[in-house]
Amino acid sequence: MSIFDFLDLLGTASFAISGALFAIKKRMDTFGVLIIAFVTAVGGGTLRDILINADSITWMSNINYIYTIFIAVLFAIVFRKKIGYLSKSMFLFDTIGLGIFTIVGTEIGLQNGFHPIICISLGMITATFGGVIRDTLSNEIPLIFQKEIYATTCMLGAVTYLILEKYDVDQNINHIITTIMVIIIRLVAVKFKLKLPTFYNH
Amino acid sequence: MSIFDFLDLLGTASFAISGALFAIKKRMDTFGVLIIAFVTAVGGGTLRDILINADSITWMSNINYIYTIFIAVLFAIVFRKKIGYLSKSMFLFDTIGLGIFTIVGTEIGLQNGFHPIICISLGMITATFGGVIRDTLSNEIPLIFQKEIYATTCMLGAVTYLILEKYDVDQNINHIITTIMVIIIRLVAVKFKLKLPTFYNH
Amino acid sequence: MSIFDFLDLLGTASFAISGALFAIKKRMDTFGVLIIAFVTAVGGGTLRDILINADSITWMSNINYIYTIFIAVLFAIVFRKKIGYLSKSMFLFDTIGLGIFTIVGTEIGLQNGFHPIICISLGMITATFGGVIRDTLSNEIPLIFQKEIYATTCMLGAVTYLILEKYDVDQNINHIITTIMVIIIRLVAVKFKLKLPTFYNH
Repeated sequence: MSIFDFLDLLGTASFAISGALFAIKKRMDTFGVLIIAFVTAVGGGTLRDILINADSITWMSNINYIYTIFIAVLFAIVFRKKIGYLSKSMFLFDTIGLGIFTIVGTEIGLQNGFHPIICISLGMITATFGGVIRDTLSNEIPLIFQKEIYATTCMLGAVTYLILEKYDVDQNINHIITTIMVIIIRLVAVKFKLKLPTFYNH
Repeated sequence: MSIFDFLDLLGTASFAISGALFAIKKRMDTFGVLIIAFVTAVGGGTLRDILINADSITWMSNINYIYTIFIAVLFAIVFRKKIGYLSKSMFLFDTIGLGIFTIVGTEIGLQNGFHPIICISLGMITATFGGVIRDTLSNEIPLIFQKEIYATTCMLGAVTYLILEKYDVDQNINHIITTIMVIIIRLVAVKFKLKLPTFYNH
Repeated sequence: MSIFDFLDLLGTASFAISGALFAIKKRMDTFGVLIIAFVTAVGGGTLRDILINADSITWMSNINYIYTIFIAVLFAIVFRKKIGYLSKSMFLFDTIGLGIFTIVGTEIGLQNGFHPIICISLGMITATFGGVIRDTLSNEIPLIFQKEIYATTCMLGAVTYLILEKYDVDQNINHIITTIMVIIIRLVAVKFKLKLPTFYNH
């Protein structure tokens, strides 16, 4: 298993845990928790695979994704008292997933020969769309439209990845640098409540 | 026309009727009723076809699906006073669709050589996703996250189908047994208000 | 660039402006405005491309769509005070997009040899689905289920296009006639508050 595959499964596990904790808080039943964990974890990658017209959807051709999600949901249910009500835990898992999936999506865009702007879009779609589905299904306005520079963090990560790639930085090192950078940017953004401007005037 | 094709059209008609009744209750206009009936009936199969990267989407290559939906919507509009305000009717059509589409999706998964867990997922996606879109478009939290063991029923049906298939039960008999079983499980579940556990503690 | 390509980009720009104005009104931040403009503009065409199993999604293989959206969003932000709070402007851009995209989708359906009813469906999906995603993401019941004969206008446009096509009217003339007709029908429908019947009785 390459670092790439490992990161993809780690991102899947992180998003599955964050999705499961979200569903538990919403008082969903066992299956609701499983389904929300599932769509949060695979939603972004699925849309990406459909958009690039991939031969097969990642989680359908590699059963390890399903096993990873089952284990992650079990983990979330068992340790929910320790991790669940600390919104910091949910935030942490969500941020790790965000960093990893941004890279995974951008990288797959590059491998398929897309324009850099499309690669960045694919990185953002991979990283954020699972959460968008989760929020939409739960009848909430997606976080991405409200939270502090959620999407911006994602875009900065994708741009960093493309620049390092261009300067021939070793891919494994690039993966690790970019992931850590996304996590730091988001932590800083939340800590200092950084916000992008809005344009509404009375 | 094989039993398989017949069941698929019957499931489509059932979901179209349940979708149309839903939209009439929501006081939507003629076109709203038609569109909600349409997405409820074909939404699950469409996502399934996209996920397995099928050459064509079922309702696009076989015009009978569209005709079936038109007739079902007409039926729902004409007989709405007799069937519409009896939520039992809507529930019945929804359950028939659920049973049939679970099998159709699981079977298509098998035909495409997917892992059993993926086949079960495809059965559940085919059966529930139309309703999920219907509820999301109508700005409600999807039934699947609230109703008594809706998704569980679906999964039990898919598992039964796979087991009977494994023991070489004649496919037509398997279709009928599994459909009836799904309908009975759901009736029993609703009758006795069976519920899965939730995990939220204060 | 053919008239067809030009119209497609013009429709994209119109929907991007209408999406951006919508997001500004919702007080979304810079990125929220960009994303909502993007999904409004490309959502319908993306679903169409996925449904017909196109080799590539239009906006991913032709970077001009992305540039068009960026310019349109910039335009909407800069001139928001002049155009933004006049809901008439938003309505106008939305209607232009509706007319153009109905034709684009219907035409692509014809090119792929689909049944006329499926071509009409593809026209309607291309024209309305971007708005449906925009409304769903913003947690509102999609306009299509409420506004005066929104979908009906769309269908009449697609039917007109198919009839003119059948009588060998020059394609460029057909594009222009049908687009203008859709715009007029919608203006008349809104002016006279035309509505389709609903079926709910007490």
